[in-house]
Amino acid sequence: MSTTTRALAAPSAGAPFEAVTIERRDLRPNDVRIKIAYAGVCHSDIHQVREEWGRALFPMVPGHEIAGTVTEIGSDVTRHQVGDRVGVGCMVDSCGECEMCEADHENFCQNRTVWTYNDTYPDGEVAMGGYSQEVVVAERFAARIPEGIELDVAAPLLCAGVTVFNPLKRWGAGPGKKVAVIGLGGLGHMAVKIAAAMGAEVTVLSQSMSKAEDGKAFGAVDYRATADGSAFKELRGSFDIIINTVSVDVPLDRYLGMLRPFGAVVNVGLPTSPQQVRISSLTSGDKVLTGSNIGGMAITQEMLDFCAEHGIGATIETISADQVTEAYDRVVGSDVRYRFVIDVSTIPAE
Amino acid sequence: MSTTTRALAAPSAGAPFEAVTIERRDLRPNDVRIKIAYAGVCHSDIHQVREEWGRALFPMVPGHEIAGTVTEIGSDVTRHQVGDRVGVGCMVDSCGECEMCEADHENFCQNRTVWTYNDTYPDGEVAMGGYSQEVVVAERFAARIPEGIELDVAAPLLCAGVTVFNPLKRWGAGPGKKVAVIGLGGLGHMAVKIAAAMGAEVTVLSQSMSKAEDGKAFGAVDYRATADGSAFKELRGSFDIIINTVSVDVPLDRYLGMLRPFGAVVNVGLPTSPQQVRISSLTSGDKVLTGSNIGGMAITQEMLDFCAEHGIGATIETISADQVTEAYDRVVGSDVRYRFVIDVSTIPAE
Repeated sequence: MSTTTRALAAPSAGAPFEAVTIERRDLRPNDVRIKIAYAGVCHSDIHQVREEWGRALFPMVPGHEIAGTVTEIGSDVTRHQVGDRVGVGCMVDSCGECEMCEADHENFCQNRTVWTYNDTYPDGEVAMGGYSQEVVVAERFAARIPEGIELDVAAPLLCAGVTVFNPLKRWGAGPGKKVAVIGLGGLGHMAVKIAAAMGAEVTVLSQSMSKAEDGKAFGAVDYRATADGSAFKELRGSFDIIINTVSVDVPLDRYLGMLRPFGAVVNVGLPTSPQQVRISSLTSGDKVLTGSNIGGMAITQEMLDFCAEHGIGATIETISADQVTEAYDRVVGSDVRYRFVIDVSTIPAE
Repeated sequence: MSTTTRALAAPSAGAPFEAVTIERRDLRPNDVRIKIAYAGVCHSDIHQVREEWGRALFPMVPGHEIAGTVTEIGSDVTRHQVGDRVGVGCMVDSCGECEMCEADHENFCQNRTVWTYNDTYPDGEVAMGGYSQEVVVAERFAARIPEGIELDVAAPLLCAGVTVFNPLKRWGAGPGKKVAVIGLGGLGHMAVKIAAAMGAEVTVLSQSMSKAEDGKAFGAVDYRATADGSAFKELRGSFDIIINTVSVDVPLDRYLGMLRPFGAVVNVGLPTSPQQVRISSLTSGDKVLTGSNIGGMAITQEMLDFCAEHGIGATIETISADQVTEAYDRVVGSDVRYRFVIDVSTIPAE
């Protein structure tokens, strides 16, 4: 037995979205059923729908920035109750028993992380994402959305928020620390808001000054254009942490040169080609080049609680189901300020 | 006024060493005069004598792995007394006042670290290194060599020892952690000894198995040849820390693949050309690529105390002054087990 729900699916790689009816499994003892209100549009949705990251599963219902309300709980559920506001991010299952799961790093489960879409459960169930009106997940993978954040601006936190919160915390963003954020898009604008709320002094490094006013409004104290190269010289040795949110080739040595000793350049975007780096850029100041891939459920909850406490949500443009295909082109063209969120109640019947 | 001492100098880039007489400054209030017993031969001595790292100062007296005995102290000296066994490493001065010096990171002094040779003090004094019978340094830059380590095996600790101790400590080597050491040379053999003494489980990754017996004797529990590539597959996801001591091009992505999540590849060698790395090798497991450049005087002292406590010295071949030129060729040919140490009492009169 299963229930059905409306969803938006891409029938094949790069094809326009269509309204479809999909099945959601009946509740297992530790499952919760969630009525989805909003789903964010993440750039990685586009990469996967367009098969830019390799072969994908179609029809695909993307969406891993999900916010909604619990409508039913399984018999063993203890974390959530009917009526709770919850979010689902990039994962919907993991083994729960390995060293990484035990340490709340389900995103690095040593057996089987199941991603929210474009993936299959061990029993063969195809994972379908948040561009739909309902989803069923194990309670561990539903995070509580505290009062104080509306569901629409909370949805993007489930991926974009934790993607930047996690490395900002790991690498010590806080009072007295200087943080630079490369790129002011969906991830970048969250990084600015969160790093500023952590007490760090935030600088945006962008190709141009076109979003400077927004950057300051989000909490940055400085905003520099990097296109002419002068910023690399002027800000040499300045930052403790640089969060790189862009997915194009980057001059890593020049960014490493902007770090203070012991500082870290953290990549959260994924350029497709290998990057070049001089080892001397790392040894000169014991500097770190690293990457960060979302975060486990404990840090996701911590991030949501932090954002609620500091009144932080994403800055969004809400769209209806019929605008999603066009929105993808606008995301690729950087024509969104700063995250599209789909009101899934607008998904029509098939 | 100044005193003179015998030394070995390279008169020009790559020229054979000659016995010379050099001057050492009269003691300032915070200086100590050290009668040198032994000086280690570091690969970076060779790079600088041969101008492989750019233009250098000649005549050059190399040597930054210095062990000896205090023979005279300035009027304000409090750290050392006549007769103390001390060592001098890569630095002989820094501003002492900047944020980095205040935090015991004199190696990253924001004003002026003075290196032990191939450098000049702010007043124009040319720094001459440890291939000599006496040196005068500010007391801060002389570390105490505890009882329990002979001066000959202590000398290489001042560079090779701290170069590997510092990152092993920063990245958490200890019980329950798995450490791999790439290359079993001067740095590598110290990394194996120190990591094992810290309680980590140590594996050597070498081109061949030729030094496997030594590696095990130094404390490694496993020793793998990497030339045929199978080790990268067999040891995938195995290590918390990989210390890379070699200065040639390395397949960084393959080594990053050998790390567990949150692990670090630490480079302490300096390949001359830029290296390639895929950002996905870093994001898959939030992994770290970093470098480490010696260490400040506090961690140098901590390392010496640790080595004394654990009975660790370098494994050396002691040579006389007339063997140094030939020893350089042997170091370049990896024909040393595992560090040459010059008995400077053999330096003849000019």
